[in-house]
Amino acid sequence: MAEFKVTVIGGSGYTGIELIRILLSHPAVRLSAVSSSQYTGQAVSSVFASLAGRSDLTFVGHDDPSLSREVDLIFTAVPHQKAMARVPSLLEGGRKVIDLSADFRFDDAALYAQWYQDHTAPELLAEAVYGLPELYRDRIKAARLVANPGCYPTSVILALAPLLTAGVVFPGNIIADSKSGVTGAGRKADVDLSFCEVNDSIKAYAVATHRHTPEIEQEISKLAGAPVTVSFTPHLTPMSRGILSTVYANMTGQSTTDELLGVMAEFYADAPFVQVLPAGRLPRTQDVRGTNFCHLGAVADPRTNRAVVVSAIDNLCRGASGMAVANMNLMLGLEETTGLMDVALAP
Amino acid sequence: MAEFKVTVIGGSGYTGIELIRILLSHPAVRLSAVSSSQYTGQAVSSVFASLAGRSDLTFVGHDDPSLSREVDLIFTAVPHQKAMARVPSLLEGGRKVIDLSADFRFDDAALYAQWYQDHTAPELLAEAVYGLPELYRDRIKAARLVANPGCYPTSVILALAPLLTAGVVFPGNIIADSKSGVTGAGRKADVDLSFCEVNDSIKAYAVATHRHTPEIEQEISKLAGAPVTVSFTPHLTPMSRGILSTVYANMTGQSTTDELLGVMAEFYADAPFVQVLPAGRLPRTQDVRGTNFCHLGAVADPRTNRAVVVSAIDNLCRGASGMAVANMNLMLGLEETTGLMDVALAP
Amino acid sequence: MAEFKVTVIGGSGYTGIELIRILLSHPAVRLSAVSSSQYTGQAVSSVFASLAGRSDLTFVGHDDPSLSREVDLIFTAVPHQKAMARVPSLLEGGRKVIDLSADFRFDDAALYAQWYQDHTAPELLAEAVYGLPELYRDRIKAARLVANPGCYPTSVILALAPLLTAGVVFPGNIIADSKSGVTGAGRKADVDLSFCEVNDSIKAYAVATHRHTPEIEQEISKLAGAPVTVSFTPHLTPMSRGILSTVYANMTGQSTTDELLGVMAEFYADAPFVQVLPAGRLPRTQDVRGTNFCHLGAVADPRTNRAVVVSAIDNLCRGASGMAVANMNLMLGLEETTGLMDVALAP
Amino acid sequence: MAEFKVTVIGGSGYTGIELIRILLSHPAVRLSAVSSSQYTGQAVSSVFASLAGRSDLTFVGHDDPSLSREVDLIFTAVPHQKAMARVPSLLEGGRKVIDLSADFRFDDAALYAQWYQDHTAPELLAEAVYGLPELYRDRIKAARLVANPGCYPTSVILALAPLLTAGVVFPGNIIADSKSGVTGAGRKADVDLSFCEVNDSIKAYAVATHRHTPEIEQEISKLAGAPVTVSFTPHLTPMSRGILSTVYANMTGQSTTDELLGVMAEFYADAPFVQVLPAGRLPRTQDVRGTNFCHLGAVADPRTNRAVVVSAIDNLCRGASGMAVANMNLMLGLEETTGLMDVALAP
Repeated sequence: MAEFKVTVIGGSGYTGIELIRILLSHPAVRLSAVSSSQYTGQAVSSVFASLAGRSDLTFVGHDDPSLSREVDLIFTAVPHQKAMARVPSLLEGGRKVIDLSADFRFDDAALYAQWYQDHTAPELLAEAVYGLPELYRDRIKAARLVANPGCYPTSVILALAPLLTAGVVFPGNIIADSKSGVTGAGRKADVDLSFCEVNDSIKAYAVATHRHTPEIEQEISKLAGAPVTVSFTPHLTPMSRGILSTVYANMTGQSTTDELLGVMAEFYADAPFVQVLPAGRLPRTQDVRGTNFCHLGAVADPRTNRAVVVSAIDNLCRGASGMAVANMNLMLGLEETTGLMDVALAP
Repeated sequence: MAEFKVTVIGGSGYTGIELIRILLSHPAVRLSAVSSSQYTGQAVSSVFASLAGRSDLTFVGHDDPSLSREVDLIFTAVPHQKAMARVPSLLEGGRKVIDLSADFRFDDAALYAQWYQDHTAPELLAEAVYGLPELYRDRIKAARLVANPGCYPTSVILALAPLLTAGVVFPGNIIADSKSGVTGAGRKADVDLSFCEVNDSIKAYAVATHRHTPEIEQEISKLAGAPVTVSFTPHLTPMSRGILSTVYANMTGQSTTDELLGVMAEFYADAPFVQVLPAGRLPRTQDVRGTNFCHLGAVADPRTNRAVVVSAIDNLCRGASGMAVANMNLMLGLEETTGLMDVALAP
Repeated sequence: MAEFKVTVIGGSGYTGIELIRILLSHPAVRLSAVSSSQYTGQAVSSVFASLAGRSDLTFVGHDDPSLSREVDLIFTAVPHQKAMARVPSLLEGGRKVIDLSADFRFDDAALYAQWYQDHTAPELLAEAVYGLPELYRDRIKAARLVANPGCYPTSVILALAPLLTAGVVFPGNIIADSKSGVTGAGRKADVDLSFCEVNDSIKAYAVATHRHTPEIEQEISKLAGAPVTVSFTPHLTPMSRGILSTVYANMTGQSTTDELLGVMAEFYADAPFVQVLPAGRLPRTQDVRGTNFCHLGAVADPRTNRAVVVSAIDNLCRGASGMAVANMNLMLGLEETTGLMDVALAP
Repeated sequence: MAEFKVTVIGGSGYTGIELIRILLSHPAVRLSAVSSSQYTGQAVSSVFASLAGRSDLTFVGHDDPSLSREVDLIFTAVPHQKAMARVPSLLEGGRKVIDLSADFRFDDAALYAQWYQDHTAPELLAEAVYGLPELYRDRIKAARLVANPGCYPTSVILALAPLLTAGVVFPGNIIADSKSGVTGAGRKADVDLSFCEVNDSIKAYAVATHRHTPEIEQEISKLAGAPVTVSFTPHLTPMSRGILSTVYANMTGQSTTDELLGVMAEFYADAPFVQVLPAGRLPRTQDVRGTNFCHLGAVADPRTNRAVVVSAIDNLCRGASGMAVANMNLMLGLEETTGLMDVALAP
């Protein structure tokens, strides 16, 4: 198998270390450089003991030439705003880029400006491909720049895509109630993320204002063929990894649970990373831990004529770094699943 | 302060031990007997080491005469069906009863039969008072039989009561997405409740079929003045105690967050156990751990014209045994808050 | 019951909020002021939502006169070094003081200097009483200044005191292996204390160098009547509260488990907060959660002729603030147990 | 790479599913059959949703011929006693066997009888190789029957082997204090293993009586060249996976931390799965989660002249199924690390 060289800019956050974890076991690529502003010059394994004896890499600075020189593809895992400052020059240098920030996920710079800040590279938005292989596999294969989806949007869009596309549910009155593990908040010193504040407790946050809302709406509006708004509520859950999204939508007809599941299974017939569970089974985040899989379950409620779809992903893997590697595979001409077929670590 | 004598039938489940915990510190009642079929004859403190040195009680059998003789009030904490078999004779013996099962929560025996089984004491349903002091305080004071509410219904009804009563939200299209700690499933040997199956994972269960649904609907229909259906989804969350309910309802007008909170604060002005948090703050289950308090937060979303109300309770205390003690206080002519004002154990 | 006025200097750490929690329910004292440098001027309930509706206190600055004026007793819950800078003036003002830092726990300023820093109020060391009621109840009653013990030393000393005093174990070759909940590390923004770094993982820290070592050794040396060194290893355990200490000591004779437990039970016959569990039962931290109790278990191992004693406490309550309140009770002439007899929150 | 066929007898416990997890990603073997008495006839993926879409296997009965016919190697993951009833016939059939129970770990049938029960296949004890590659790599390569070590013994023996072998510590007065995740107790319905009984709590169990004690002693006695007894205490820790063992031994000389680490690093110079961390760093179980690695740290304490060695493993992987696969690799002539080099899932 041909070997490709890839690098990670911003490798000391949780998505960074997850990228490193996956790439070190990948059979067809070699991770040749990783950067971190905080840990420049330190061995990756001295910062992350999980890599002890597994990697000789040392964090370089974000501007180190090794990050882009003779490299096939670059992952940018820096915060939004910093990403759009950096990506244009990488593309000009002829590199393929997968950006894990929000900077290139929006079609419309005005929408981005409304929820984030002014966009400094708006000319790239039309070119950037939203990196959800289940929706855009062919465009990703041909892309120079892929905007890796957000974790919450991934879990919500995968839940809604089949039913909205098939017209089985109305695009109005959609509710997405998501429960995330704490890695979703990133690796940082913050009292509110300390063990004792999170353990044995749950809370909602950013109700009606979370920045993943317009990202969800952009994609499901395309699927519905009309502008859709959604009520999205994220929750901080006492677990390290995982997002469970419970999505409610009113049915246009009187579908049964089996019919909903049938529509979903058909939609994902060619999607190697989506598993539609049989009727009567509902996903647990534990069953996708450490993997790029999405488990989906659904129930039709004849009392309220509503469909309830539940999706489970690992927010760091499927919701960030695993999906980035799937996109990398597609962009490099590899099988989408290469290096991503480990079985979930359950329990 | 006068001393009352109370007993607990069914004291070895989680609601039973929680009742014992609260009653042992109560300044105006004395817990004189507790029964358990499983542990008959064993010291309560030998089954629950948290009571070592704190109680000399020994579990008696469910039919032991000490449970009802010269007793002011009896808590029945046995499973549904067993409760309705036992309660009538206790009432005939002249005792006041607070039943923690579902058996006396429904106005309509047919509705009960539809979700549970045939009712064997339907003649008591009209008399039984639904024990939610915030809605039925005066009736509880005069009651002979109180049906202690379910944990999920408590958290959802308290969230919805003010807005529905005030007509601020429509009774249609209501979604209640609830996240419960594992004590809610009871104290039992079950692989699905074992630590490793629950830890670091979350799942939905009983989607569209949970038996607390008709209980929620019964009460909010009365508040709305019309039959209401609700989509209710419970989730098993990796924490021991707590329910967080996130409730979505479409607004009739264009209320602001402050207006929603104002309606809620006014509704609960005289409710000692409900705290409406200021705008910008959302409840955490940790902040009510071990207490009879309910914390409420709300956000008005102008984009979707939807109200999102979040409630947090301790499922074992406010959602079961603490509320039962508040009901006991009212039935015995004590202050509602007696013995229930401990500060939450946070963190 | 007479009412006393007390204050807390340093009320926004975990021991501070735990003091507030306990004192707000205390029947004989009134908490009249609490200080915090970080939150000066903010309502206590706006910082700690667990106090919503439960307290009207506002944090004052550390130098606010309300902290010491017409006050019966002051808790100082500031870090070591800051405590010894403040305590002398409080005593000069005629106040009784319970200091929760390490500053007054040592008899010997040189030993303090060796493990901490130079002592700035060494003249108080002879007067300060080590606030472990099980060892120094009478001296505490008469004390002006009580040095509240450390959490680990409390759990280890209570485990060893009976056997060492009775000469049942040798003072040499003692190992104390302690597992602490994360509140023991304090309330702070620190990546290493963030949920994801701690969850589902355990580690040792400060092996052979933890500052609680000399505190343990000072007290057990007095009990043994000779200088004792101990190997003490603390571990960070994925739980919020609790310390379990497993203590190993070689037996001088061939005691049985029952004999060990007998010695322990006799030693603590008059100690209201120590429970010696029967043979065959071992303590769980959950069973003392939120309480001032210490549960003890023991096993004699004839194969190795070694005694293994296990102690469980709540590090924040028995290991800090609960014990401070017990000391306050003694210093104010109240029953030691006043306000401290709540049953553990288990599960 | 040549392909081997392997099977698992007893595949529905936690070690069974962990074997399946690892073997499904193994590049050189094919898992051709798995048995379970409880789930005979059910799809493996219907019992373990983590395998949804990943395996077409169906559980067969324990006596199904597919388990042994034309198979290169068989893993027996049934409880002790059942293992020794089954293994002899598998060997007679010409199969290589790795047994994950305790039945073949002892050299001496009398010792086994003392801690377990009478041995029914004592004639195999001399042939069976204790499957710890770091000690017996060459013998494992040639073995027909490998007794896979216990999880606790693995963590304790790896901690002690270098220092005992080098004579740096005395064989007397050794204490091994181990903290295990809950998967170590197996997959079963048991109130004491339910989430709420374990969460946010820690306890010791089987003090001085755990059956892994003689297994530890057998192996370290060989290393020390003399009979050694050890005080071993296991603890149930609120985490799913992982064992951290803190091992105390008195030093024969006055070694420094660096010298201890040097001895350990040299001893494991050729061991691909052992990482000796640099001075100042101590292992966390999280950093080996899901892997076959063992992380070791050590501190020399000049005050007590004692060595404290800390080891971290994943009890299910390194402590059971991962080690079994490493043994399989050796027995089949593969590289020891084949299929076992995934990076730990941290956080």
